[in-house]
Amino acid sequence: MADLELIRSISQPSPAKIVLLVLDGLGGLPHPETGKTELETASTPNLDKLASEGICGLSDPVGPGITPGSTPGHLALFGYDPVRCNIGRGVVEAVGIDFALQAGDIAARGNFCAVDERGLITDRRAGRISTEKCTELCQLLDGMVVDRVKVLVAPVKEHRFIAVFRGEGLMADLADSDPQQTGVSPKAVAALSPEAERMAGIVNQFVAQAKVTLAGHHPANMALLRGFSQRPHLPTVREIYKLKPAAIASYPMYRGLARLVGMDILETGTAIEDEFETLARNYGKYDFFFLHIKATDAAGEDGDFERKARVIEQLDSVIPRLTALRPEVIVVTGDHSTPALLKGHSWHPVPVLLHSEWCRRDKVSEFSESACISGGLGRLPAMEIMPLAMANALKLTKFGA
Amino acid sequence: MADLELIRSISQPSPAKIVLLVLDGLGGLPHPETGKTELETASTPNLDKLASEGICGLSDPVGPGITPGSTPGHLALFGYDPVRCNIGRGVVEAVGIDFALQAGDIAARGNFCAVDERGLITDRRAGRISTEKCTELCQLLDGMVVDRVKVLVAPVKEHRFIAVFRGEGLMADLADSDPQQTGVSPKAVAALSPEAERMAGIVNQFVAQAKVTLAGHHPANMALLRGFSQRPHLPTVREIYKLKPAAIASYPMYRGLARLVGMDILETGTAIEDEFETLARNYGKYDFFFLHIKATDAAGEDGDFERKARVIEQLDSVIPRLTALRPEVIVVTGDHSTPALLKGHSWHPVPVLLHSEWCRRDKVSEFSESACISGGLGRLPAMEIMPLAMANALKLTKFGA
Repeated sequence: MADLELIRSISQPSPAKIVLLVLDGLGGLPHPETGKTELETASTPNLDKLASEGICGLSDPVGPGITPGSTPGHLALFGYDPVRCNIGRGVVEAVGIDFALQAGDIAARGNFCAVDERGLITDRRAGRISTEKCTELCQLLDGMVVDRVKVLVAPVKEHRFIAVFRGEGLMADLADSDPQQTGVSPKAVAALSPEAERMAGIVNQFVAQAKVTLAGHHPANMALLRGFSQRPHLPTVREIYKLKPAAIASYPMYRGLARLVGMDILETGTAIEDEFETLARNYGKYDFFFLHIKATDAAGEDGDFERKARVIEQLDSVIPRLTALRPEVIVVTGDHSTPALLKGHSWHPVPVLLHSEWCRRDKVSEFSESACISGGLGRLPAMEIMPLAMANALKLTKFGA
Repeated sequence: MADLELIRSISQPSPAKIVLLVLDGLGGLPHPETGKTELETASTPNLDKLASEGICGLSDPVGPGITPGSTPGHLALFGYDPVRCNIGRGVVEAVGIDFALQAGDIAARGNFCAVDERGLITDRRAGRISTEKCTELCQLLDGMVVDRVKVLVAPVKEHRFIAVFRGEGLMADLADSDPQQTGVSPKAVAALSPEAERMAGIVNQFVAQAKVTLAGHHPANMALLRGFSQRPHLPTVREIYKLKPAAIASYPMYRGLARLVGMDILETGTAIEDEFETLARNYGKYDFFFLHIKATDAAGEDGDFERKARVIEQLDSVIPRLTALRPEVIVVTGDHSTPALLKGHSWHPVPVLLHSEWCRRDKVSEFSESACISGGLGRLPAMEIMPLAMANALKLTKFGA
């Protein structure tokens, strides 16, 4: 398997354009009554046409049998090794709300929790307070400055929030304050290396101040922190592929992941049509577009087979707006499977189609799980899709003499 | 490819059961007259039904073109990287006779050999003495104690035996005593590190004593040792997969391999029916069964095409006893190919079928080399079979957020 350093060494800029269209949780499982998956149930004349003109296959986001979360699923699609690119919990949460982390920021995942008069935890989730209440409490804590370090606090959902520490020379080498059980006190944050001592002190001062501020807000009268982490040192998509990349995604999580690998984030609406409109409007300004459709995954997670099939049909109906732009390379795939029958992400490989003048067509004439088995791309790790897209855009030079 | 550490981190116990049925040397080559392999020649209605309801593919035990021995073939099926899990020759021999090696034991492969009155080797294989004679000589040497180290000696076959050194703080860092040629003296065993000096002394004392004991037994009047090695530090199947695993195998070698990765060994008979009876009797006590059928490989090694096909038919006829147990996941495959036409192991990929409710069926309706080419599992390294079986048993949680 080619590594990023090799790809970086042979990639070169060119005007050719690549569109990576990700239908989140695209892969499915056959309905017991029809024997057809969601994708096979949907009528998809436009995707089928792309498949006939292109080359198809099945991709494993992480590896056979491995069910990926959204983070590894997308990192693989962007060409990164999803196992080696380990991203800390605090950063994942920040990315999930599309928080613009800066280099050097330390992010932690926070829980509001309930403590009794002795300071012992009675509920680690503060009775799952509403997101509105969480937002209100975050506003009370946001912007505190401790020893020249600014603490940014932002709501995630219900009792969950993020705390981002911004300042000079901060370290993420800290143990959690969350003891992961009730009936005990929150732990003081401990430094895991001598260099992190100052940072531990700052975090503990922040927590002490938060306790005072939250005092009257039972059941959310204390805060627990865990997963202190820094943005990983990933080379960006610009550096590796020499692309000018843009992301179009209506959900914050996917904008966050795109930002993490150095893509520009384009403003867009929540409907599939909005995203395609955004693509058309910005088409001249970039040479790589990551276009993310969330509704397929959401329907799969809800176990709604029919709705997932309808979303795929809806997506299919706007494909002509994409092909009208005539990008040199179109890739259509998913970041993982989300079969409605399993109501969640799964390990099943994901259909992938690549459409370009130079793709060497196979005989697949239908975009589906079963047809892709016999596709010319075979079964491939998802992290090989980007090199293939680059090659088909004629953006990779020869390796070796 | 996912590594064991990743699999370990996401595997969780559950009541679901997995049966891994290994037909040793399953894969074959087409008979010149019929164009059909052994598996394709056999009538296998039950395996074909499993294939129709399941998902199929072709697996490479070590890699394309690599003909595996039984050890790497099985290690790969258990999910270990067969190239990185290097197992010393002494340990392989001990495993091959199902000798229960303990942690810290040092095993060596031994040859009885003939030496002349000057001590020079005249026959490295002692005229291939009978296994009975070998057993008798091993009894003479077995149980010697040198410097608080017990030496266990057990026969393998003909002139071959194992010597296992058991005691505190032993090292395997030793050169062979076997010079691999005649007309010279056996070498004194040399320490390859300063820490192994004591062990070298112990081995040389044992060899000197053996020479005295064997003096009257020409042509088996001396012993050569090589391949000093220790049980590898493999994480067990229990640790990695959180399984309660049992092995059913009529041949010692396969029980030994299963023992090496921490499986319980179930008493069984020598017939295929006996092994299936053992499975049924112990079905409630374990959640993973490795069931090994040797006769396919033996027929292939003998170059007996017809017998190999008949063994496969015989196996097929007892498949209903397996399916009646309704395990959540059934895998049927081999550890390598043994085409009767080649009379030995070969590099050809091995048919594999996986049967489970969640497998995403493909269109393969026959269990055969040629049908498996178009299977939904595609072509996969054998070490990915266990993660797939675990996923299909819903025993793997999501990787990454």
